[in-house]
Amino acid sequence: MPSDAPKIKIDVTRALGGEVILYERKTQSREALAAAFQQKTGATLVPPFDHPWIVAGQGTVGLELAEQARALGVELDAVLVPCSGGGLVAGCATALHALSPNTKVYAVEPAVADDTRRSLEAGHRLTNTSAAPPTLCDALVVQTPGKLTFAINQRLLAGGLTVTDDDALAAIAIAFRYFKLVAEPGGAVGLAAALARKFPSQTRSIGVVLSGGNVDPAIFARAVTEGCPP
Amino acid sequence: MPSDAPKIKIDVTRALGGEVILYERKTQSREALAAAFQQKTGATLVPPFDHPWIVAGQGTVGLELAEQARALGVELDAVLVPCSGGGLVAGCATALHALSPNTKVYAVEPAVADDTRRSLEAGHRLTNTSAAPPTLCDALVVQTPGKLTFAINQRLLAGGLTVTDDDALAAIAIAFRYFKLVAEPGGAVGLAAALARKFPSQTRSIGVVLSGGNVDPAIFARAVTEGCPP
Repeated sequence: MPSDAPKIKIDVTRALGGEVILYERKTQSREALAAAFQQKTGATLVPPFDHPWIVAGQGTVGLELAEQARALGVELDAVLVPCSGGGLVAGCATALHALSPNTKVYAVEPAVADDTRRSLEAGHRLTNTSAAPPTLCDALVVQTPGKLTFAINQRLLAGGLTVTDDDALAAIAIAFRYFKLVAEPGGAVGLAAALARKFPSQTRSIGVVLSGGNVDPAIFARAVTEGCPP
Repeated sequence: MPSDAPKIKIDVTRALGGEVILYERKTQSREALAAAFQQKTGATLVPPFDHPWIVAGQGTVGLELAEQARALGVELDAVLVPCSGGGLVAGCATALHALSPNTKVYAVEPAVADDTRRSLEAGHRLTNTSAAPPTLCDALVVQTPGKLTFAINQRLLAGGLTVTDDDALAAIAIAFRYFKLVAEPGGAVGLAAALARKFPSQTRSIGVVLSGGNVDPAIFARAVTEGCPP
């Protein structure tokens, strides 16, 4: 994990029996560190996004969403999915393309780490200038879209949306208040984009993926006491 | 609702379209107010606990718990359920008695409002001295067990357990940290009793009912920033 990962993420991973190796985002490559660790130990690498099995596994979120919408008799106009390397949104888009082909799927990113949005507009993979952009959405700062994930996303996504940290904190407060769920900033950007009306104006039914609840207590406390509109 | 109900509970109920009538716990009877309102408007009363349909509805929690434990291949030694008027625990005990007869079901209350625990020990319904006991568990301060619910609980429960507000705050922090769920103090007393080891020593598998997430942001913030053991 990067050394600036939320303390709660590091602590909870250790509590579950995991060995956590920290690295510096700005000066070290996690891919190189993982390759060296793998060579030394013979461990199996589970890549975070750029692998067909990972995309397929994350796509079960889209599958469940499509099935739940169908059970409710709802036709989804749009689905908003948090995006870093792009695996979750690529998997969701694959499932929704098959089961709900009229649904527009959007990748949602922090405004300061919008490599997927810019890449989708440019038609090829672009890289964020900073390896450690200033955002509370620590889980969404991969610098460049994955090769496989971008190939899928370029074909299936309607586009990329962006939100600010304040948008994410307001979404955390709404998830606390109405859904009784704990979301981390990066996990709440889909809901944040919906609440900030970052979708085309004729959109009526919106599905949102809330993903990840590793948020440090102080940031969560700030979100729920200050972030919630009356 | 009592005038000291969490502001978030009042606000969210109004946001969902409900009309909220406030009363004073110490000087007014909600039963009398509800009866007068009913007579004036012809409204249907949905009692909070002392009615067979309410007990049956709340018992679906026990039904799901028994089915999930069976699906996991787990034999539950004990199930800990928050208790105020006793409807939720009576329903859960009814379901578990049928589906998992070796499971001991306990009512869990705040130590300062332990009418069900004392009533179970005495063998008849006892009343708390205070109508507004000093506890953060605002949802668990009914003064006397229900007639129907106590008749069921007397027959089916293994006993009553109690926890402090600090136990409840620690449980809120654990639910935040590991389950990513928002629980209110009264809703977390079952988990609190488990974490504080308030069960017989030979108990191995414990089911807990987390019920209710209407907690004011400041109290939740205090729980997650201070309440969590390292």
